[in-house]
Amino acid sequence: MLHKRIRLPSLHSRITSAAEAAALVKDGMTLGLSGCGCSGDAKAVPYALIERARHSPLTVSLVTGASIGNGIDGKLAEVGLVSRRKPFQADPALRRAINSGKVMFVDQHLSETAEQMRHGQIDPPDIMVVEAVAITEQGHIVPTSSVGNSGLLVQMAKQVIVEININTSLDWEGLHDIYLPEVRPNRSPMAITRSEDRIGTSAIPLDPDKIVAIVISEYSDAPATILPPDEDTRRIADHLIGFLKDEVDAGRLSNNLAPLQVGVGSIANAVMSGLADSPFEDLIMWSEILQDSTFELMDAGKLKFASATSVILTEALGQRVFSNIGEYSDKIVLRPQDVSNHPEVIRRLGPISINTALEFDLYGNVNSTLIGGTDIMNGIGGSGDFARNTFMSIFVTKSTAKNGAISRVVPMVSHVDHIQQDIDILVTEQGLADLRDLAPRERAKLIIEHCAHPDYREALWAYFDKACAKGGYTPHDLSEALSWHVNLENHGRMLVS
Amino acid sequence: MLHKRIRLPSLHSRITSAAEAAALVKDGMTLGLSGCGCSGDAKAVPYALIERARHSPLTVSLVTGASIGNGIDGKLAEVGLVSRRKPFQADPALRRAINSGKVMFVDQHLSETAEQMRHGQIDPPDIMVVEAVAITEQGHIVPTSSVGNSGLLVQMAKQVIVEININTSLDWEGLHDIYLPEVRPNRSPMAITRSEDRIGTSAIPLDPDKIVAIVISEYSDAPATILPPDEDTRRIADHLIGFLKDEVDAGRLSNNLAPLQVGVGSIANAVMSGLADSPFEDLIMWSEILQDSTFELMDAGKLKFASATSVILTEALGQRVFSNIGEYSDKIVLRPQDVSNHPEVIRRLGPISINTALEFDLYGNVNSTLIGGTDIMNGIGGSGDFARNTFMSIFVTKSTAKNGAISRVVPMVSHVDHIQQDIDILVTEQGLADLRDLAPRERAKLIIEHCAHPDYREALWAYFDKACAKGGYTPHDLSEALSWHVNLENHGRMLVS
Repeated sequence: MLHKRIRLPSLHSRITSAAEAAALVKDGMTLGLSGCGCSGDAKAVPYALIERARHSPLTVSLVTGASIGNGIDGKLAEVGLVSRRKPFQADPALRRAINSGKVMFVDQHLSETAEQMRHGQIDPPDIMVVEAVAITEQGHIVPTSSVGNSGLLVQMAKQVIVEININTSLDWEGLHDIYLPEVRPNRSPMAITRSEDRIGTSAIPLDPDKIVAIVISEYSDAPATILPPDEDTRRIADHLIGFLKDEVDAGRLSNNLAPLQVGVGSIANAVMSGLADSPFEDLIMWSEILQDSTFELMDAGKLKFASATSVILTEALGQRVFSNIGEYSDKIVLRPQDVSNHPEVIRRLGPISINTALEFDLYGNVNSTLIGGTDIMNGIGGSGDFARNTFMSIFVTKSTAKNGAISRVVPMVSHVDHIQQDIDILVTEQGLADLRDLAPRERAKLIIEHCAHPDYREALWAYFDKACAKGGYTPHDLSEALSWHVNLENHGRMLVS
Repeated sequence: MLHKRIRLPSLHSRITSAAEAAALVKDGMTLGLSGCGCSGDAKAVPYALIERARHSPLTVSLVTGASIGNGIDGKLAEVGLVSRRKPFQADPALRRAINSGKVMFVDQHLSETAEQMRHGQIDPPDIMVVEAVAITEQGHIVPTSSVGNSGLLVQMAKQVIVEININTSLDWEGLHDIYLPEVRPNRSPMAITRSEDRIGTSAIPLDPDKIVAIVISEYSDAPATILPPDEDTRRIADHLIGFLKDEVDAGRLSNNLAPLQVGVGSIANAVMSGLADSPFEDLIMWSEILQDSTFELMDAGKLKFASATSVILTEALGQRVFSNIGEYSDKIVLRPQDVSNHPEVIRRLGPISINTALEFDLYGNVNSTLIGGTDIMNGIGGSGDFARNTFMSIFVTKSTAKNGAISRVVPMVSHVDHIQQDIDILVTEQGLADLRDLAPRERAKLIIEHCAHPDYREALWAYFDKACAKGGYTPHDLSEALSWHVNLENHGRMLVS
């Protein structure tokens, strides 16, 4: 069957074992791996590298699209294989290594890595390992369930290792649209004016001589683990859908809304699922990562088309969708992440962006990455590409955490990922604050009344009133601004009586 | 001579006094004024409004391009005329009114106001007052020294008042390129691939019936006041130019660099002036506001072309340039600020952006708006449009202020306008930190050693070491993170022994 998977016959001689391919990776190299949203990851070669590093030390600088699954990021860190990592991760063990200072992590906007690399501002990979459905007659690479940064990484790498995953459907071919923005200053406009527009090729072009090894792989992506909607996430969805209905009624949105960008995670997925019962029709997505809700809405006839860079599904849905991916070939396109997240296209198409906050403050500044201002969870991902440039920027979170010990609405966030200018709408299970065209002091009142948990409102009012007595555009008392976080660190809860 | 200034004869009957025009403004209205970078401001009608408000109370919500000069913003605030203001200001009296909570100021990215207005997310003006060189045969409006938001504000206003400024050169006509992005989702790519590309019209199109009054004005824009380069700003320029030379030598930039965006102010202007003695040739600008240095570099043959939304010059240079503006007609174009600052074009052209920081922290987060986290100076302006989307984002500042009582490099900024992901290069008179591709702990070391003043390095190292002992991706001790600002508030200096 390999003649369908490796259609350039001269490449058959490069088939080798994962261990032999892994042996090409030398100490000190920059290693590229396919993978974005824990999807389309190179797996066989990384596993072999981890095995090798258990016996002989090896250190690389690792660059991917975004997060990679199956605990590979963590295992690479645990055996000391990764000294540097960019631009995103979502692995508990790697997170520990980053927060302890063992791994130098460069948290980047998902649109930026490729831009900086093509301009020589960051190093290209010495070796790129890319998972593929097939290699074409021209020696070009057909990716699997994500594109991420694979297009540029393959083109800029000195050597390429291809993992042909024989458990992926050949029907993936044709779903991708590989377009790599030109080097500036000679760049032309991207001719995308609708989510479904195609401007590239169905495979990643490269000189096939760069392919130094081909590994046959049967490993699966780790399935997504998404918590089912609960009472709180349902309320968040209800508040948001109610707001969008009002926008339609006011004539500011049509009944198919605007292209939707929805971040990864249980809350955002619940919001999307809530659209199934909404009056909106013919929805489209311009997003990064497609989750279960995308396919549920498509199957329900609510969603017409989705553009993204990656698909990550739960086990049950994945079994059905991935084996029948051809059925979605006219409804989905996967693009490089510096196209899905490109400021040019985002501003032109004008999506409604829904992302998750770790915490936000009285004036609408959002922290989406760092716990207590210090410890990273995952990374900023594409939220900044969208929040700054989108039509409507919405952040969602539950109002409290840890059984109420933590308020997600705080006097001052311990770290800022998204500045107040980039936030239009904030939603918790308590309600929704429409911050458009409001000054900070006006924002604070809405945020306390509509978003904060009742148990924290009095304390927020007290802080705000005291700060206003001191004055300022965004009134603060800097000696107390971070006291809730200090309380949490010292006493396990934000409010101490 | 008015037949050259008002070329649609039917409009001559609408000439009236400033006081009569001002009487059209009613209490509670949204008022639009031309003006951006204290340039091209409506002046006669605002003066008349201020006079009127001294006798009979009147309150409006005011929207402009950006800052307006001649103290008009402050006088409007002092007579209680302005209850709401957006998207930018730079007036001491208005600043006091904002910081005391009397005026609700909405600090917006300069590219955002027009986007939100055309989509109904913020209210259009009831009346728009626009300064003009002339009204064309079609009744269209030729702006003066700025475009700002005047294009969209004129188009969306219910009524338009034109101030024909007879002291402006008729040769301004032809320097503007009025292009208003379409309403989404049906927006086409902007066909700008070089700074000099023109895609619009030379005047603001509108139905001339909307012009309800024409006022003849002789008021001048307030000239820019720019401090001459001093020893520190010269050093900042030297560090930056040395870095750019290295980038050229490394092959990452060509000898004409990339289009330059340079923020307003003395430091940025000094950096630009420093380019006169650099080896770089055939420079171009893609910027917001053109200052003296633009024309000095043009006259010196260093700068080929400059695109912006506004020109603001010192008195001496202004007298020469503005009376001979026709000589620059093939070297300058002025565009709407949602074109000059449009994410699409910024990402495509890839400028080198040089903006001024109020302070920055160990990890490279930049505060450019709020003193002590609370009191606004001017506003974020266009710095966020550029810093997020540009090719290379550079921020400059002197390392100390107030005779050394204030360090501009602090453990944690008291407010974040630009997140660490958006900062490539930081420069003070002490040196330059190239932060590209570095993790936060690596950034901190460079920032302390290269940018902080020697008097503060030991204290910064002490904070950083203590924070690292606690751990984290961006190590902080939240109980001390803002203590330097608290010291400043309580003791008048950041370090207290």
